[in-house]
Amino acid sequence: MMPETAKQRVGDARVGRLATVTPEGRPHIVPCCFVLRGDMIYSAVDGKPKSRLSLRRIENLEANDAFALLVDLYDGEWSALWWVRIDGHGRVVRDEGERVEALHLLTRKYPQYHAVPIPGPVIALEIETWTSWP
Amino acid sequence: MMPETAKQRVGDARVGRLATVTPEGRPHIVPCCFVLRGDMIYSAVDGKPKSRLSLRRIENLEANDAFALLVDLYDGEWSALWWVRIDGHGRVVRDEGERVEALHLLTRKYPQYHAVPIPGPVIALEIETWTSWP
Repeated sequence: MMPETAKQRVGDARVGRLATVTPEGRPHIVPCCFVLRGDMIYSAVDGKPKSRLSLRRIENLEANDAFALLVDLYDGEWSALWWVRIDGHGRVVRDEGERVEALHLLTRKYPQYHAVPIPGPVIALEIETWTSWP
Repeated sequence: MMPETAKQRVGDARVGRLATVTPEGRPHIVPCCFVLRGDMIYSAVDGKPKSRLSLRRIENLEANDAFALLVDLYDGEWSALWWVRIDGHGRVVRDEGERVEALHLLTRKYPQYHAVPIPGPVIALEIETWTSWP
């Protein structure tokens, strides 16, 4: 897959799956909405910000900032399959200006954010490597 | 989500995303076809068995056998979203009888296996916990 194709597919994707590592060294995975901007991905921990489940990925990133985000297509026609994996390091966005900008980008991509509770923390995933197949 | 619903959704799913941890302590994630049988999930490392990419999940499980498998539905209608995460420990299937049985189950679920190269190693993911949302 050409690098431009990988970037376009990730930019267009409505959902990705985000893997982090727990403080105990176990893998953790959640589906997530996100927006790609240059070499950065932003994602908001949406809804029920106090729930244990929503906060887990943040606790993980604070203990081990490595992340892997997968965007893929599954189809019964296996010759059509593809995936793109992004590896890098993540952090919780503390800067209010960066947070407002990220929420703006997310809301532009996902009009659904207009109708759900204001998201909680925003995470910034700094892209280091792109891997794709085929 | 009721436990029975979670099990049925996982059993019916055509694809899951499998997260493991690399020997360096980074998260790794791949899409995978799998079959659920009782408290076990089987998945084959299909095609090009010698490729570096295909073997990565096996190297990971041999260094750290913890896995997380996610099955989810994404939809533009956010009230329809759901996910099921399975955590447990994985291993490469060494027993030939178990391997043949797993390949039989996989081929019954995915007729596509009749047309692709014979899969390489089969991994067994022993389920310890089910987590689901909502």
